Amino acid sequence: MEPNVSTMQQHQHPPSCLEIAMEVHRVVPPPHETTLHKLKNRLKETFFPDDPLRQFKGQSTRKKWVLAAQYIFPILQWGPNYSFNLFKSDIVSGLTIASLAIPQGISYAKLANLPPIVGLYSSFVPPLVYAVLGSSRDLAVGPVSIASLILGSMLRQEVSPTNDPVLFLQLAFTSTFFAGLFQASLGFLRLGFIIDFLSKATLIGFMAGAAIIVSLQQLKALLGITHFTKQMGLVPVLSSVFHHTKEWSWQTILMGFCFLVFLLVARHISIRRPKLFWVSAGAPLVCVILSTLLVFAFKAQHHGISVIGKLQQGLNPPSWNMLQFHGSHLGLSIKTGLVTGIISLTEGIAVGRTFAALKNYKVDGNKEMMAIGLMNMVGSSTSCYVTTGAFSRSAVNHNAGAKTAVSNIVMSITVMVTLLFLMPLFQYTPNVVLGAIIVTAVIGLIDIPAAYQIWKIDKFDFLVLLCAFFGVIFISVQDGLAIAVGISIFKILMQITRPKTVMLGNIPGSDIFRDLHHYKEAMKIPGFLVLSIEAPINFANSTYLNERILRWIEDYEAEEDLKKQSSLRFVILEMSAVSAIDTSGVSLLKELKKAMEKKDVELVFVNPLGEVMTKLQKSDEGGDLIRPDSLFLTVGEAVATLSSTIKGQQLNHAV
Amino acid sequence: MEPNVSTMQQHQHPPSCLEIAMEVHRVVPPPHETTLHKLKNRLKETFFPDDPLRQFKGQSTRKKWVLAAQYIFPILQWGPNYSFNLFKSDIVSGLTIASLAIPQGISYAKLANLPPIVGLYSSFVPPLVYAVLGSSRDLAVGPVSIASLILGSMLRQEVSPTNDPVLFLQLAFTSTFFAGLFQASLGFLRLGFIIDFLSKATLIGFMAGAAIIVSLQQLKALLGITHFTKQMGLVPVLSSVFHHTKEWSWQTILMGFCFLVFLLVARHISIRRPKLFWVSAGAPLVCVILSTLLVFAFKAQHHGISVIGKLQQGLNPPSWNMLQFHGSHLGLSIKTGLVTGIISLTEGIAVGRTFAALKNYKVDGNKEMMAIGLMNMVGSSTSCYVTTGAFSRSAVNHNAGAKTAVSNIVMSITVMVTLLFLMPLFQYTPNVVLGAIIVTAVIGLIDIPAAYQIWKIDKFDFLVLLCAFFGVIFISVQDGLAIAVGISIFKILMQITRPKTVMLGNIPGSDIFRDLHHYKEAMKIPGFLVLSIEAPINFANSTYLNERILRWIEDYEAEEDLKKQSSLRFVILEMSAVSAIDTSGVSLLKELKKAMEKKDVELVFVNPLGEVMTKLQKSDEGGDLIRPDSLFLTVGEAVATLSSTIKGQQLNHAV
Repeated sequence: MEPNVSTMQQHQHPPSCLEIAMEVHRVVPPPHETTLHKLKNRLKETFFPDDPLRQFKGQSTRKKWVLAAQYIFPILQWGPNYSFNLFKSDIVSGLTIASLAIPQGISYAKLANLPPIVGLYSSFVPPLVYAVLGSSRDLAVGPVSIASLILGSMLRQEVSPTNDPVLFLQLAFTSTFFAGLFQASLGFLRLGFIIDFLSKATLIGFMAGAAIIVSLQQLKALLGITHFTKQMGLVPVLSSVFHHTKEWSWQTILMGFCFLVFLLVARHISIRRPKLFWVSAGAPLVCVILSTLLVFAFKAQHHGISVIGKLQQGLNPPSWNMLQFHGSHLGLSIKTGLVTGIISLTEGIAVGRTFAALKNYKVDGNKEMMAIGLMNMVGSSTSCYVTTGAFSRSAVNHNAGAKTAVSNIVMSITVMVTLLFLMPLFQYTPNVVLGAIIVTAVIGLIDIPAAYQIWKIDKFDFLVLLCAFFGVIFISVQDGLAIAVGISIFKILMQITRPKTVMLGNIPGSDIFRDLHHYKEAMKIPGFLVLSIEAPINFANSTYLNERILRWIEDYEAEEDLKKQSSLRFVILEMSAVSAIDTSGVSLLKELKKAMEKKDVELVFVNPLGEVMTKLQKSDEGGDLIRPDSLFLTVGEAVATLSSTIKGQQLNHAV
Repeated sequence: MEPNVSTMQQHQHPPSCLEIAMEVHRVVPPPHETTLHKLKNRLKETFFPDDPLRQFKGQSTRKKWVLAAQYIFPILQWGPNYSFNLFKSDIVSGLTIASLAIPQGISYAKLANLPPIVGLYSSFVPPLVYAVLGSSRDLAVGPVSIASLILGSMLRQEVSPTNDPVLFLQLAFTSTFFAGLFQASLGFLRLGFIIDFLSKATLIGFMAGAAIIVSLQQLKALLGITHFTKQMGLVPVLSSVFHHTKEWSWQTILMGFCFLVFLLVARHISIRRPKLFWVSAGAPLVCVILSTLLVFAFKAQHHGISVIGKLQQGLNPPSWNMLQFHGSHLGLSIKTGLVTGIISLTEGIAVGRTFAALKNYKVDGNKEMMAIGLMNMVGSSTSCYVTTGAFSRSAVNHNAGAKTAVSNIVMSITVMVTLLFLMPLFQYTPNVVLGAIIVTAVIGLIDIPAAYQIWKIDKFDFLVLLCAFFGVIFISVQDGLAIAVGISIFKILMQITRPKTVMLGNIPGSDIFRDLHHYKEAMKIPGFLVLSIEAPINFANSTYLNERILRWIEDYEAEEDLKKQSSLRFVILEMSAVSAIDTSGVSLLKELKKAMEKKDVELVFVNPLGEVMTKLQKSDEGGDLIRPDSLFLTVGEAVATLSSTIKGQQLNHAV
């Protein structure tokens, strides 16, 4: 033995429970599982974490069929128990959201550079489809601002909506089809977790940026400018606005200002008093009616105020013949469908989950995706563009007391009546009011308190938020999103590449070992280096871990106090947090073991978890890597046992 | 209290130490750190895990300068102590690797579709540069097979080396420059960890695939075919070979077969007896000399055996005027430089680390990258193409007893002599021998035992290996690599997205809690659900964790035995393995806490680590998330304390 062991005994570490004789628990290999079994488990956890087939277990065949039908068509679950009382609530909420959906539908269609009527079409068919297939009771379905913005801006990169309106419409329907297909496939293939990669921070930054971009676009309507830029960025829009000051129309500005103030006040009232939700819910319709009457009365369309103009009467015409699955714009359609699909899906799922949590029922993410996807696929062949559950409208729906998806049906019927009989009334509706409605709707997407909360808790998340925000404002909507997602994933990869290794110390009077830096009272034990590795060990971090662990050893040897008491004898790796290991990780441990042996230091493993244990055993042909005397269940037991070994050797040596 | 508590006491869990009164340790918040300080630490761990400036601490200014010079030019470290004894070893090893480098240089240049002489140029200048800058003592520098293959195949996609040889050469030098620039930047910006993303499994699969692709290309030379396909894939090459059977030349095939057998036997001898390393090291040169003499003697060039032909005499001409930093092929040059740069870097660093570990000295990865990068940048302006430390040649160097980088200088001088005086001798060297040399060299890259080892330990890693292998063979070299890296990263992301949550049980007779599935003797404690989360909690997994934890609770409630003893009272989250948390994770915990409260279950945290603790505190405005009575340092203490609370309440209730 080395000479310094004797020194160690004299300077025995004082306050510790470790000296007490304790039972030592063995680390056992986990029960054997075949590769197939493991694969099955892994796949189940990946794709069926919610175990959707659980309810089918042990049921009769007939019952299984009923359950399956109810699973596919949730309307069969609540339909049979539907009562007049529920209907009363649903009719009130349905009419309320219809009063919001009609002006918003027209406005959002204009935001997507589509004819206003398409917005109304999109508020008619999709809600009916969702009512049958969807499992949320509060979701109010229809076009939404962000998806409209993205659809319009992405398609406009290649096709002009003014020069080539038919092609533009065809591409919009085709994109909607792909969006629906993509959404439904995500749900069907149970890949719904993909939308989890849009973190909250990303979404808050993205939404705020998009709200600003959308609002800037409304300056065209609000100021009455006729020659407006076709670009979306902050800089080109503002320069366009201030280069066309001559086109500003004071009548439009005055009207826009008044209605904007009215809408914002109504919104403010409803935020302050949620019971007065109907104030902000009804305000847009009131604005549309008032402004239309004003224009009609004063013939304001001849005084610089632009109006919607004639709208076609009648229900959705079929549009499956307009879907284009070939030609030079196919790539664009697919890309647009993908981006709008994922964004609108995220909004729809988030809304569904939020209200389900409030009312304490469950929404199955993957099933919702199929519902929303099918709704868009049906929509794309009935002249509708991308729709989803909108946040603001669903909140109104919820506040107005919606009980089931019947409120969507009520809204849909109201829109139908409008389409059949009331279209001529919109002829004199001024565009400026639609602009004011959009601005008021999207302002709610800027969530400064949430951003502040993120800043307070996690600076890196805030960075992601900023990237999404500025990316959307200065680059483009889709690039801003891509950058933010990229940075979020990069952060995860960095955490893996540079996992924390922490030096543990003994908490006096116990056999607990904790981070020395965190728990100031924890004490180092001479001769031992206790390290905890806090990540799976794999190819991306094994080189780093090798370097880092060797540096910990150098650090130990550089510390005079400790070295005086005992040179390093054992490096204990606490593996409780190493949830997985791959072949590179196994090689790392083997190399470490070898490198330690050269320094006459023993490498000891504590609590390797099931999978790690299995792999270590499989790779350990000589039985050298995990010997029973270098494998313990807790750090306390390892230190106690090994200290007594040293002492035993010491005594033998003395004899 | 609920009625079932009384039941619980009657069915008290029998064998447990937990009942013994124990001191309860407090969880304290970690010491305060400013954001700046945290950022500094994080950056240091990310970019300077090896703490390279440590040796500068506490030195005099003069000493610091010396150290800095030695840091940049490692030759200054060993140069002053260089002795005649070392030189004797180096000259033997230098001459040995020169005998290997000359035929390999010519062969690899042909593999890259470059004039053979460029291969010799590349064995002259880069070794000199590396000898001054590099820190490995065993690396033998020069062109390597894989990088040559990639460079040739990527450039050939756009430019034909036969129709446009000058442009092809220009692009090769430009790519070499970008490869060097990229390598040096990685080192300078300390981003060396990027090459860690090429896992061992990826590399084994990739190398094996590349070896087969390279060998297939040699069929042209080995069979004497004149009209050979320009594609690289397995299918087109084989179909080309069997469509041109009329071009096969029996003289060439005979010669190739004889030399191939000779080389393979020599290789086999050296593998069996490492002391006879010079047999395989000298064999290629012997082949070249023998075959050249044969051709010269029998005038075989007139009998269907193709020869290299006239080679220009003289040292490397300057080539900086051939670098092209504009024009339509710039993108291709950059892309080629990036791929060849990263591949050759990976090989060079891996070789350096392997031999450094064998001889127990250290190689600084980032510094090596700068050395290799600078070497390629210098090379690109002296008519050299991409070079790095070759595995086979370095092994020969090591076996031949190389002590320092002087062996590279000796090799370089030998190549210089060849370039100046011996070039006419190669005029009659037949191409078939070069093909045989390449095949023998790359066959060593197919490492079946390592692949088997990977299959045994980790099936997923083996899948990555297969993807790399088949990707390279059937798609293309760079795509195969990209697919394998993509899958490896996907695996890491999946581990994060679907982290393991494990249910813990008490190991009888102790206060230790371990995985119930792994340790069969561990026992559940009625009224408690102890879950361990084994990954950082973040946006990518918070939805999943929410669902999974709620399912664990449902599982508890479905278990009749447990429920009879006590309904669920506490969910204990063991957080020791949660190394980080972000804002989504914090929200998850808050939501869980709320959801539990609705079910009258308390959520208890055990051992949140420093960073997690800080974030929970920051976000916990009401002080509701982490109350002192729902926060413990170990699961054992939590269970003991909470059980006694239940009993206390129970007693009060009874009174």
